[in-house]
Amino acid sequence: MTRPVRYLEDFTIGQRFVSAPHTMDAAQIIAFARQFDPQPFHLDADAATHLFFKGLVASGWHTAAISMRLVVEGDLRIAGGIVGGGGEVTWPKPVRPGDTLQVHSEVMAITPSRSRPERGMVAVRNETRNQRGEVVQIHTAHLVVPRRTAADE
Amino acid sequence: MTRPVRYLEDFTIGQRFVSAPHTMDAAQIIAFARQFDPQPFHLDADAATHLFFKGLVASGWHTAAISMRLVVEGDLRIAGGIVGGGGEVTWPKPVRPGDTLQVHSEVMAITPSRSRPERGMVAVRNETRNQRGEVVQIHTAHLVVPRRTAADE
Repeated sequence: MTRPVRYLEDFTIGQRFVSAPHTMDAAQIIAFARQFDPQPFHLDADAATHLFFKGLVASGWHTAAISMRLVVEGDLRIAGGIVGGGGEVTWPKPVRPGDTLQVHSEVMAITPSRSRPERGMVAVRNETRNQRGEVVQIHTAHLVVPRRTAADE
Repeated sequence: MTRPVRYLEDFTIGQRFVSAPHTMDAAQIIAFARQFDPQPFHLDADAATHLFFKGLVASGWHTAAISMRLVVEGDLRIAGGIVGGGGEVTWPKPVRPGDTLQVHSEVMAITPSRSRPERGMVAVRNETRNQRGEVVQIHTAHLVVPRRTAADE
């Protein structure tokens, strides 16, 4: 599949993208936790009822990883791929089995590089929301985006 | 295995913890990328030589997930588990196959809650370093930590 890709010049402030949905189930939550975040509230629904979240919840890093996949497979389509140096990640609400997640992205800033004329940075606020519209993750990503050159025309 | 756990009163500013090591290999990097970050520089060592990182690199979210496991299995041992509302994550350098990662944690701030007398927040700076001592991830975590009560004595 060849999809057209975006260069720095193709982004505008306030541009929005919405990903496909993904439904989290207990099996996914537990499988991720076994590998990466083995704590009782991510591993065992029965034990979790007595703990901090009062039930099984996804690891925040699982929500982050799923959100990344939704963005990679979505419409952002940056030339050269989605490459970021990090940013702020917050989890205002937990993700529970059966929650359907979708990432709502908005372009917040576009900054051509002063030292590297062939690229710039695009700041994107990615809100991961559940089926009730509640925000479960906010990630502000600072992405490296190439500029269009004569060869790309 | 029962290990003693730490309450808010057990933390001190400047306290440090070092995790066990974990070596990343190409198989782990590719397996994570297939599930969560399917981009050529995380999936295919040959294709990656021509792309941004000039070789296969781990997804930043993979580094974050492995770092979480190292912290969960390490000596922080917060009563009730490691529960955070998020924080800043940056990836100053990429992680490549064969890199051995270790998390160096330092307690930066301890803040009793004003509204919830039974808990507080501990800010921990987690630096994930490779075998050359280079920092590949910095994550400042704001963790919920219970206070010790009479019942815990």
